[in-house]
Amino acid sequence: MILALDLGGTKLASALFTSEGEIVKKSTVYLQSRSGKEVGKLITDHIKEYLIEKYSIYGIGLSVPGISRNKTGTVWAPNIPGWEDYAIIQEIKSSVGDDMIVKMDSDRACGILGEVWKGNAMNTQDAIFLTIGTGIGAGILVNGQILRGSNDIAGAIGWMALGNPFHSKYLPYGCFEYYASGDGIVRMAHEIMNSTPDYNGILKQGEFTAHDVFNLAGNNDVLAVQVLRECIVYWGMACANLISIFNPEKIIFGGGVFGPAKKYIDDIKQESGKWAQPISMTQVHFLSSALDNQAALYGAAYLALKSIQ
Amino acid sequence: MILALDLGGTKLASALFTSEGEIVKKSTVYLQSRSGKEVGKLITDHIKEYLIEKYSIYGIGLSVPGISRNKTGTVWAPNIPGWEDYAIIQEIKSSVGDDMIVKMDSDRACGILGEVWKGNAMNTQDAIFLTIGTGIGAGILVNGQILRGSNDIAGAIGWMALGNPFHSKYLPYGCFEYYASGDGIVRMAHEIMNSTPDYNGILKQGEFTAHDVFNLAGNNDVLAVQVLRECIVYWGMACANLISIFNPEKIIFGGGVFGPAKKYIDDIKQESGKWAQPISMTQVHFLSSALDNQAALYGAAYLALKSIQ
Repeated sequence: MILALDLGGTKLASALFTSEGEIVKKSTVYLQSRSGKEVGKLITDHIKEYLIEKYSIYGIGLSVPGISRNKTGTVWAPNIPGWEDYAIIQEIKSSVGDDMIVKMDSDRACGILGEVWKGNAMNTQDAIFLTIGTGIGAGILVNGQILRGSNDIAGAIGWMALGNPFHSKYLPYGCFEYYASGDGIVRMAHEIMNSTPDYNGILKQGEFTAHDVFNLAGNNDVLAVQVLRECIVYWGMACANLISIFNPEKIIFGGGVFGPAKKYIDDIKQESGKWAQPISMTQVHFLSSALDNQAALYGAAYLALKSIQ
Repeated sequence: MILALDLGGTKLASALFTSEGEIVKKSTVYLQSRSGKEVGKLITDHIKEYLIEKYSIYGIGLSVPGISRNKTGTVWAPNIPGWEDYAIIQEIKSSVGDDMIVKMDSDRACGILGEVWKGNAMNTQDAIFLTIGTGIGAGILVNGQILRGSNDIAGAIGWMALGNPFHSKYLPYGCFEYYASGDGIVRMAHEIMNSTPDYNGILKQGEFTAHDVFNLAGNNDVLAVQVLRECIVYWGMACANLISIFNPEKIIFGGGVFGPAKKYIDDIKQESGKWAQPISMTQVHFLSSALDNQAALYGAAYLALKSIQ
């Protein structure tokens, strides 16, 4: 069996997979205030628990939230303090033995791999998994291979430039992510609220999340509707750019925001259709993830499985 | 020796290369009003002339201005009437014999291949060749391989969406190409001129080209300077998007506009630096083509050479 681990900014999900892709057991543990080596220990302790139970585990796959440096087996995870260049592969190997196969990639890469193995990118050579959650990223499959770039940072599409001129507020996030991530939806709602003093709806009554905006848009709150309309434009422009650049067969939407944004996929496609290379546009399918929030977990399993088969 | 042909919208360039990349002979012939089969005949006649001269030619490489459909050996070339799905490979093979190795790719792909072989992308696995001429396109090298997409249309970056909201004037070109191609520079100059009635400079005196705009900017014509400043923003944003998406080692500028725009490469890089993923930004080099307007010709030769070696 394969043990898959999906490390996020707030929790560690894990699952035991058969080589056919069935989940035999799974669990989730929260990082709480852990940082640095404590997160490393959480991972190795977690692995040991599975090993103690005497499952026949012949490979471990790990998805990490950031940059997976494949040559060194180290990780840069911006949301985990002390993980600037954390040698997690070495730590796992020290814990479970050098014989164990341990494979790692970024959550973006694992997301598209999960869809290739058991989701909506099966039998696909050119597809893009767009994760829109707190942040934005893309796992990109080119001719059946993960696009890595020269230093494993490819797919950082949250930094896409979508509107001239530049504003310094984009600096910590990138222009696309500034407006159209989960956090961006909240930011945009505040910006629009500040410029529409007439608005007296529910969003004015206190703190809110992206999910609140989605719920209120469903109830025709004017501000929430306007925010989502703007988001659809940004999502559509970004997809258009990926279509013109990659000529992919599929764009697959995942992450916490899709979810509730699933019902807008046709609207996003319509917006993309205005901008994208017109022939490529006719060749692409827009889909939501078939694996909900487990695409990266499936992908981590597949990563280990592929290296064995 | 290798015979390389670079078909453009207005001319057919050709050259005989040694396998070391030296040009032994070259020529250029203009298409004039030729279309459809006349262009096919021009190509095969041209090839025959080289063959008659008894050079030992063991492969032919062809660069085409549009989509090279690799599975069928046919071409869609928007600027050559009658080349919607033109079977040029079959026509060449019928003319020179089935034994001859004949390889074809788009001018974008040949451009980056030329730089890989003998230009500024030697020993590079991840690089982008950005052609900015009448139109805009990109030849993209990913892990040492040309990015093709699901139907050979990848790299159509002239369609990049760079400014919300959409205007229907973008429809025939794409947003990026509308403003920042050779033709786009002229369009933008007219737009800015129409909105600045105070301007009474040279550009108001009649028809002009992108090259005129470059020359006048050198002489501090206010309108020309403003147009180029806007272009630099668009070029910078587009490069930023390619950097965030691909994490490349190099971006190489070619095409008729670079040329005169070479001297702005540092300004373009500075603009990109505002928008792009900051780590990837530190890892990329901005260069102009080492092969002037012959990158596609070199690439066509390399295409044939690679399939022999």
